[in-house]
Parts: sequence; C-alpha cells; structure tokens
Amino acid sequence: MTAMDTITYRPARDELAYTFGGRMPVAHVRSGDILQVHTEDCFGGLVRGPADLPSQVCRMPYLNPVSGPFFVEDAEPGDTLAVHLAAITPARNWGVSSTFPHFGALTGTFHTATLQPPLEERVWVYDIDRHAGTVRFHATASDHCVDLPLDPMIGTIGVAPGGFEARSTIVPDSHGGNLDTPQLRAGTTLYLGVNVHGAMLALGDGHARQGEGEACGVGVEIATTTTLAIEVIKSTPTVWPRLETDTSIMSVGCARPLEDAYRIAHRDLVAWASTLTGLDELDTYQLVSQAGRAPIGNVCDPNYTALAAVDKTLLPDPTAAYTGVHARLRQRAAGRG
Amino acid sequence: MTAMDTITYRPARDELAYTFGGRMPVAHVRSGDILQVHTEDCFGGLVRGPADLPSQVCRMPYLNPVSGPFFVEDAEPGDTLAVHLAAITPARNWGVSSTFPHFGALTGTFHTATLQPPLEERVWVYDIDRHAGTVRFHATASDHCVDLPLDPMIGTIGVAPGGFEARSTIVPDSHGGNLDTPQLRAGTTLYLGVNVHGAMLALGDGHARQGEGEACGVGVEIATTTTLAIEVIKSTPTVWPRLETDTSIMSVGCARPLEDAYRIAHRDLVAWASTLTGLDELDTYQLVSQAGRAPIGNVCDPNYTALAAVDKTLLPDPTAAYTGVHARLRQRAAGRG
Amino acid sequence: MTAMDTITYRPARDELAYTFGGRMPVAHVRSGDILQVHTEDCFGGLVRGPADLPSQVCRMPYLNPVSGPFFVEDAEPGDTLAVHLAAITPARNWGVSSTFPHFGALTGTFHTATLQPPLEERVWVYDIDRHAGTVRFHATASDHCVDLPLDPMIGTIGVAPGGFEARSTIVPDSHGGNLDTPQLRAGTTLYLGVNVHGAMLALGDGHARQGEGEACGVGVEIATTTTLAIEVIKSTPTVWPRLETDTSIMSVGCARPLEDAYRIAHRDLVAWASTLTGLDELDTYQLVSQAGRAPIGNVCDPNYTALAAVDKTLLPDPTAAYTGVHARLRQRAAGRG
Amino acid sequence: MTAMDTITYRPARDELAYTFGGRMPVAHVRSGDILQVHTEDCFGGLVRGPADLPSQVCRMPYLNPVSGPFFVEDAEPGDTLAVHLAAITPARNWGVSSTFPHFGALTGTFHTATLQPPLEERVWVYDIDRHAGTVRFHATASDHCVDLPLDPMIGTIGVAPGGFEARSTIVPDSHGGNLDTPQLRAGTTLYLGVNVHGAMLALGDGHARQGEGEACGVGVEIATTTTLAIEVIKSTPTVWPRLETDTSIMSVGCARPLEDAYRIAHRDLVAWASTLTGLDELDTYQLVSQAGRAPIGNVCDPNYTALAAVDKTLLPDPTAAYTGVHARLRQRAAGRG
Repeated sequence: MTAMDTITYRPARDELAYTFGGRMPVAHVRSGDILQVHTEDCFGGLVRGPADLPSQVCRMPYLNPVSGPFFVEDAEPGDTLAVHLAAITPARNWGVSSTFPHFGALTGTFHTATLQPPLEERVWVYDIDRHAGTVRFHATASDHCVDLPLDPMIGTIGVAPGGFEARSTIVPDSHGGNLDTPQLRAGTTLYLGVNVHGAMLALGDGHARQGEGEACGVGVEIATTTTLAIEVIKSTPTVWPRLETDTSIMSVGCARPLEDAYRIAHRDLVAWASTLTGLDELDTYQLVSQAGRAPIGNVCDPNYTALAAVDKTLLPDPTAAYTGVHARLRQRAAGRG
Repeated sequence: MTAMDTITYRPARDELAYTFGGRMPVAHVRSGDILQVHTEDCFGGLVRGPADLPSQVCRMPYLNPVSGPFFVEDAEPGDTLAVHLAAITPARNWGVSSTFPHFGALTGTFHTATLQPPLEERVWVYDIDRHAGTVRFHATASDHCVDLPLDPMIGTIGVAPGGFEARSTIVPDSHGGNLDTPQLRAGTTLYLGVNVHGAMLALGDGHARQGEGEACGVGVEIATTTTLAIEVIKSTPTVWPRLETDTSIMSVGCARPLEDAYRIAHRDLVAWASTLTGLDELDTYQLVSQAGRAPIGNVCDPNYTALAAVDKTLLPDPTAAYTGVHARLRQRAAGRG
Repeated sequence: MTAMDTITYRPARDELAYTFGGRMPVAHVRSGDILQVHTEDCFGGLVRGPADLPSQVCRMPYLNPVSGPFFVEDAEPGDTLAVHLAAITPARNWGVSSTFPHFGALTGTFHTATLQPPLEERVWVYDIDRHAGTVRFHATASDHCVDLPLDPMIGTIGVAPGGFEARSTIVPDSHGGNLDTPQLRAGTTLYLGVNVHGAMLALGDGHARQGEGEACGVGVEIATTTTLAIEVIKSTPTVWPRLETDTSIMSVGCARPLEDAYRIAHRDLVAWASTLTGLDELDTYQLVSQAGRAPIGNVCDPNYTALAAVDKTLLPDPTAAYTGVHARLRQRAAGRG
Repeated sequence: MTAMDTITYRPARDELAYTFGGRMPVAHVRSGDILQVHTEDCFGGLVRGPADLPSQVCRMPYLNPVSGPFFVEDAEPGDTLAVHLAAITPARNWGVSSTFPHFGALTGTFHTATLQPPLEERVWVYDIDRHAGTVRFHATASDHCVDLPLDPMIGTIGVAPGGFEARSTIVPDSHGGNLDTPQLRAGTTLYLGVNVHGAMLALGDGHARQGEGEACGVGVEIATTTTLAIEVIKSTPTVWPRLETDTSIMSVGCARPLEDAYRIAHRDLVAWASTLTGLDELDTYQLVSQAGRAPIGNVCDPNYTALAAVDKTLLPDPTAAYTGVHARLRQRAAGRG
C-alpha cells in the first residue's frame, strides 16, 4: 500500500459544480488517500431565514452544488470506487428546510403535472446542537418546538456517468448522485462503478437529518466538512451503488415508479448476496424475501431511491464483500485521528 | 364498560372465507371482548413439503383464507374499530414459503405482463423454534441453512369494504385486507374505519416473519392462534388503516404505483399528527418530512402497501390517539393472562 | 339457433345497481337475444345544471349506476360472452360534465394523495343534436361555444367478477366495468370472460363522447337506450376484455401504473393475434410492435384503461375471431330493424 | 427575412453523436435555412441480417447515433426553435428491427428488474418499397409475410438540454431526444425550447414505421435523408416539446410512470389551448377532456412518451400558434422543390 495522503478541499463559490460529468477535476487523489471536503448546502448557503424563499433567492440551475470532481488516479471503467464516509460534521450551528413550489411527494410537480396551484412556500430554520446530538424543529405557525436526533448524512455523492453524459446534481441514478438516503451517514462505505478514467468523484448536499422519502422534497440542509477514505478496487464492476456498514450490506435502486427502484435494489442485492453466500439465485431470492429490509431514500427527486438491505449475520464471512475493503477503510480513517 | 368476554373461534375447513364483504358472520362479539382465533395459512395448509407446488395443490380462488367475519355489535359506518394484536402464536413447528408462477416483485406478473416464462416454482420449508425464537431457512440447492428471528405477524386483517363491495382476501385496500406488513405483530393496535353495520372483522395469513416488500410474494406462511382485544370507537371515522404501538403511530397506504401508497400513508399521517400536535398542516408536513419513517409492507399484491410512521416522542401526549384505546386494550389483553 | 327474442328493460330508480357481482338478476336472456336497455347517466340524472354540483347532489356510493344484471342462460365459467353494441341512442337532448373534487388526471386524488386543495368544482351542460351529429360545448367563464362530433359510447359494461367478489361500478378490471374507452361505440363487439353462472351482464354510464384518457374524470354524461345482441361462446375462456369492429381487433388492459395497462393489453393482443395468424409469439410481438395502435381509455379511474389494436388486414381471415360471432351479431342486430 | 440557404450534411462515421449537449457543432445554420441531413439508423448500420444480433455487433454506448449538433445562429435560451419536417426519405430499400435483451415493454428490463432470463434476441429485415408505399414484414419462424404502410418518421430529434447537462440519445425528455413517436412524420412542425446559445439541434433514428408504444423497443429502423426547415421564434419559451400539423396541435410529455407523461402532455396542451382559444383554464381542461386524443409514443425508453392532441377546428384561428410559423415553414420547404 502506498503512503496515505490527506487532501483537504474547500471550494470557492465559483468552483461549485452542478453536474456529474462534463467537468474538469478540482484535485487529484490516489487510492488509499483520505479526503476532507467542505460541502455547501443545497441552496448554496443562500437560504438563511424565513424571508429567504428558495424560489426567489436561488436561480436555476444553480441548485444542489457539489464539491469536486476529484480525479482518482488509476480508476478506470470496469473498476469500483469504494468511498468510506468517515465523518460528516455540520459546518454551522443551524440547518434549513423548506417547501418548494411544485416539488415534493405530497404535491403536484413538474412530472406529476396537475392544474393545482403550488403549496405555500415556507422556510424552517433548525438549531443544530452537536454536543447534545440534536436538531431542533421550530414550528412557523405556532411556538411549538421539538428536538430530533442529529443524524448527519450526505445527500449527493457520485461519479461521472458513462456514455458521455453529464447529469444534473438533482438526479440520482446508477452513477450515484442525489441519492438522498439517510443510510449515507458516517460509518458507511459506498461502492460506485467507475464509468470514466479518473472516476470523477464529487459530493455535497449534507443533511443534519431527513425522513425516509424526504416527503417535502428538502431535508435539514447543511454545509459540512466530510471526511472520506477511498480505495480503487480494480477489475470489479459495480452496476448500481452499493453500501456496506459494520452490520449490513445494501443495494440502491433509482427509478420511477418507486416499485422499479425497489426491484432494481432487490435484484442487485440477490446477485450480491448470492455471491457472498454461495446460494443459487432462487435460494437467495427466498432468503432476501424473508430477511430483507427496504429502506426508502427519496420519493421526490427525478428518480426515486429505494434500498434493499440484509444483515451481515446472514453471510458466512461478514468481511468478504469487495475483499474486505470496508474494514480496511474504516481502520485507515480511524488511524488518522 | 360491559363485562369482558373471551370468544374462541376455530373455523371448519368449509367455513374459511375468501373475501372481505359478501359473507354472513361466523360469530358476534362486543366492544371490549377478547377474541381468540385460529387462522389457517395462505395455502389452506395444503403446502407441506417440496413436492406440494402451490399452483398444483391449491385451486383458485381458494387462496389466502381468512377466519371470520365477526359481527361487532354496535359498530356502525362512521365508527372506528380498534383491534389490538395481543398475541400471535404459530400453530405448528414449521412454516412454508415458495415462488409462485408470475407472482412476486422480481418477475413479470399478471399485471406487469411480460412474454417471459415464469421463474421456477419451488417450495421452502422452515423450522420454527418458538423457544429459541428462530425461523430456520434451509437452502434447496445446497445444504446451507441459517436462523432468522421469529417475528410472527398477521398478513391479512380487515373489515367489509363499503359501497356493497366484496373484495378478494388477496387485495389490500382502505378496508385493510392483505396488508402484508411486518408491523402487524403482537403489541400493535390496528384502527380500521367501519363501513358496514357490524364491521365484519376477519383475519388470516400469518407469517412467522417476512422481509419488507415480501419480494418473492410469499412470507414464511403459518397457521396461528391469534388473540385480539377489540373496541368500537364511536363517531370517529378512519379513512385508511392506522397502527399504533407503544412507541409509534403509523398510517397505511395501499395503491399502485408504490409512490401512491407512500403518498396516501404520508398524507394521512400528516393529518393525524397535525391533530395530535396541534401544528398546522405545513408545519406537520415539515416535521414528518424530517422525522418520518416509511416501512414498506408488500410490493407484490394487487395493491402495494407502504406505511408512514413517526415516534410518539414527537407528540405532546403519547397516549392521546383515539382517546388512549391502545393502552386500554393492551392492559385488558394482559389482564387476561 | 333458437328463435331470437328482444328483451326491453328500463330500471326503476331503486333497481339501479352499483356493483358488478353481489346482485340478483333483473331479467333472464338467452344466447341470441337482442337486449334493449335504458341506462341512466353516471350521476343518476341528478346533475342537470351549473348549480347541481355533483359532490353535493350525489351521495356515495350511489354514483355510476348500471342497469342489470342480466342472467344469460347457459353462460358458465370458462365461456365467453360476446356483446355486440348495435345502437347507443342518447335519451335526452343534453349531456353533462363536471370537475369533481380530487378526481381526474390533472389533480391530486384519493390515490395520488397531495396536500393541495381540490380544483374548483364546476358543471358544463352540452347540447346534443342527434340530427346534426354534434355535441355543443359552452364555456362557463365566457360565451365561447364549439361543436364536437357526437360519438356515443357506453362507459361501463361488464359481468360479475370471479372469486366471490363484488366490485364497485367505478372500477374497470378484467371483468369489464368502468372501462371508459371511446372504442365502446355502436358497431363494436365486446368479449368478456364469464366468471359466474349466468354471467350477470350489466351496463350504464353512457357518454355522448369523451376524450382519450377522460382527463377531467368525467365524459359528456348521458342517459341512453342501448341495443345489444348477445351470444355465448361455449368453452372459450377470455382473460381480459377484447373488442372487435369491422376493421380491428383490440385487447383491453386495466391497471395502474398506465404502462401495466399497456402491457396487459399488448400481451393479450400478441396471444390473440398469434392464434389468428399462426405466427409464433416473437414474430407476433414484432408485428404488433410495428403495426399496433394503443388507444387510451381512461387515466382517472381506480384502474387506468389502455387498449392494444391491430387492423384486420393483418389477419389471413378477418372473420375468424371467436368463430365469426362479430359478423353474425352485427347481421342479427341489423335484421332486427 | 434573410435569403434562405440549403445546408446539406452527411456525417462521417466518427462524427456521429451519442448525446444531446456536450458536443461541438458540426455546422452553423440560420433561422430560415433549409437543412438536408443524412441520418444513420439506431444500430449505426451494423445490423443488416438475421445473424447480426444487436447485442453482439453493437457496442455500448455507441447506439442511436444522431447527426449534428447544428448551431442555430441567434437561438438563445428563452427562444423556441421551430423545426418543420419537410421530407423523410428512407436511404435504403430495407429496414431492420429486433428484440434486444431486457429492453422493450413486454419484458423485464434494466429498470423493471426481474430475475427472468431475457427473451430470445432475433432480427427482422423488412423490404421497403417507396413506390408502393409499403414496408414488408417477413416472419422468421414461418414464411408468412404481410405489407404494412410505409410511414417514415424521425425517432430522435432534440436540442441540448439546459443545466450543463449532456443526455444520452436513448433518452427522451423536455429537450426532445428519443421521443419515438409516429407523429414525427413529414408535414409536422416540432417546437423545442432553446436551452443553450445556438440551440444545438441534432437528429437521427429514422423509422420506416413503428407501432404506438414501440412495444418490442425497436421500430423498423432506417437510415434517412431528412429535410428540415427551421426558424427561431424569439423570446418565446417552450417548456415541453410541441407539435403542429395542418390539422392538429399536440403537446409531448416524457416521464415514468406513463400516466405522468400523459399528465405533462395534457397540462401543457391545456395551457397552450387556453392561450389559443382565450378560454380560462378550467373551461380548456373541460374541452380537452372531451375532444382530446392521447397518442402514445414509446413505452420502452428510459422515459416514456405520451402526447396530447386536439384538432385545430377547435381553435378560433387555426394558424395562430407561434405566429403562424407552421404554415410559413411548410411553404418555404415546398417552394424549395
């Protein structure tokens, strides 16, 4: 293993990216490096109070900026990029959420087109108490407030898509992107198939927390400092994003309708679990059908995100996935402290 | 409150029902009664080993039998029937699962019609060890086996639908029915809107456990003895099924595509939580968006089932739902021991 | 062939039916008979002007009444009932349409649940000029008016479903029901699989015309006198409704999402056309893919309706479907004049 | 008006494009010009007989090539590009179709993920007789053949998307792209919103004909010489593609599930027709609901395509759309002969 470097990156405002693909790299990293990245929130930091209505202070397509892309040396199409989320630290002591006209699960939208006027656009500002581990919700129409657990996650992370495409950072798909799932918290390793030379990793859109499905279309949006440990797994293709934690393996599907996201994730998990258990496809299908969980990511973005998960207790060797890279990266990131 | 009776019911084979609605009651019960019901498995007990292929030993429409209906005295349209699941006990020391031709999430089906031949039909028999609390999976193509937690649930429970309808027990909808969600385990109270005089409660289709979405279309199917405590909540309509546990409230949506089930459940939970918190609709939408969970029930039945859940810690008074009936029924069922 | 009878039926108000299945027959007919039926409009005739808002003058579930059911002698499960629509005559010189709260394709609905308030409820009254063959639209917010072609059709026609079910007349499914497709005009023969002894045919919900998809959820609703010629085709099952005209054969699919309705209809048409052409399945799939049409019925009812159609010019023998019953019934109905 | 030029373009093989956006222009054109473009078929001309299985002879992502992009001078974001399809001439006397593994409406796919093996991959070669106006289907498993009407169309045409995106030519969306609708035949004017300076028009993927929905995923694929007349309509945004013929106006929606494509198209048509008739939104919704047609484009691509259409007879002035550009371009293209 080569010596490990720590690369720190904080984008200037005009360095923020709004697509995966179609951009020049902001830095080069090597397999084995630790990457510490500052990410802006999905509004570019422009929504700071009730008067900052997103549809007024933000300008399309300058939404959901990501930091990057990072050129990962040695990453080639057909490889897999393992990205361990070592730490996700809120950069400020507040986060912000909102409704947004014709966006979200419980409203007519650009795609689920109706003739109804949009819901009222409103902003919520949350207090973040890192010490207490809480996110405080304040009602806008009354003085009710309530604390929710702080559970920081990265909403948007991915690599350049294949086929010469460049995709908006609003979109989740097989290259990752705006996955918007609470499972992308610290302690998780994300596997992404490499589509272009250098992989071109980028990330942003931190959430202090979000509900499953992100019903109103917006999480508790935060800027973050996020620490990643990365490794290139050579000659190992990955079709859809996969996740690994100390206790679970998970496959991700992105599609509409939502059942197709469920199908993609489950078919992929059946294939993965079959490899790790040695069971044939139908036996694995059966086992996943009884033991599987189906965490929902988002039900508001251009593609919806669903996950399929099983506990590692089902696997003969819980460290076998991708040649044990999860444990390796976890340790490397910890050693860094 | 009237004195509590315990009614025990074990159907003869020719008493099993295959619809909600359109049937005469098998027994009368009163609000406050305890009901102990034997339920057959979804195959009518006919699938007992690898050679019993469901498509051969079962005959349509004699699938997914339920026990009942029970006429609940005093239950009228506009009321809500609260059904507390006090105990779900597997009736045998084995359960059974299978693939079924053109049924399940990862295959073309009757509705998602394709030209591909069906997947191989295969049967899995599980050992149930109530003492150890395990369900043992045995692979069919190898000698691999693995224990999963025993987590008994009722797959199918509901009342007669309105509008003079009678619905197949395969179908989940606003009257309940084949909800197929692991959340219907012991300790949960289910709220169902009453559509017809007497409500006409029925249940069946126990699972020793199932994964979220029931990917292959079949859980670990069991016969059960299920103990229910019931109460009629007068003049309180319930549009979609709701669930309450000691720690959560949940709304249920049944629809295709799956995002509509998600939408139904979330809209209902927003309305319910708004009532319980006093927040206005948009504040509640925001709170649920950050704090909500979205457990998936089934992604294989004629309607899919999705739930929306929040923890009771968000509620000013965690016992306020439906005038505290959950705690009341829980206690009554326990006192019965 | 037995002597042909003409049966005339005009329901009293309290004879109208609101389900397919679960009802006693209003009359018995025999294969070969002509049936002349008066049908009420979908509002039961209660919406007659701008002030008659449907949500106020109609009461659930007393919507979309059908006339029947008719017990067809000799019709048994496994047979097909052929119903030739010989004539559909508007019963009045006006028809009516409306928006309806949270119903229709361009609004949040009961199933596509949103938090937005409903669209304004409004009624439109159309003049029907049978002589000129026109339906006159009058704007409500201006004095604009325009004539559309009169193209009468039956929105709701079906038999009792199987499996002991009774389904609301709002629902289209494999038993027929609220298909809401303009293709159900005079000159068309409808094939329905028989699920119960006597078939139990019923119909209603005439439209002076409707657009494809019935976007606002309501056609130009009319009462009609409809003339049918019927025949039982023994020992010939039909899974999904099929249609035949002088020039086309069509299969009907009812499902959500809309692509599943498309899939059902196309898979069925591939099977049907394969039988009629002698082509193998893949050759037929190819031919239908290039020659097929996909008329949309409704995109507003509990199931959506899509059709798959090909011209009879593709068939070696254009009269071969169901042993030529279309031509036979057409002739019989004409001979009746 | 400036003098009209005719620009002719025939791409070399390595000039073919596989995205909309992300490419340098191959030529510059001006508003008012006539453009004559050679387009290759969706297989790049590599499938010429039964032995040329597409999955073997084609290599991802080199599928569905387009000719272009053309830089349209003076076209700026906020303008509309009008593209009149003056002529679409098959370049060869044959066309080709196929099944393709896990692609098409009647099979599990990459997105509708199932565990079933793909359908057999097979190639069909059609004879094109331009004189007779026919496309001849030859069965592969028998010697059956049948003539279908020749009805040439362009499957893929669009401009660069906004938001710095580059999209695969397989995808239809608001920028146009792989719309795959038979309505894109000669005589039609297509309106596309301009997203980037120069619009960057490109086209390809001709079909000798296709069925509605393109069920098997592949039309009768041809190379073409296509003649376009173009004009820039300044300061007139167009959100979704629109079409105009001598007799109809049509809006296009691209989305999954298919009902969302229907909704998009219908909402857009309501807005457009409201402008052209002066009716308010609800009156237009009503009129379109009774008079509208809903032609289906594709039910196989990453987004499905549905159209909403009404006859111009409903419009006070049938030539009013986009200041009469359809008639103007039609005439200009004809004058060229």
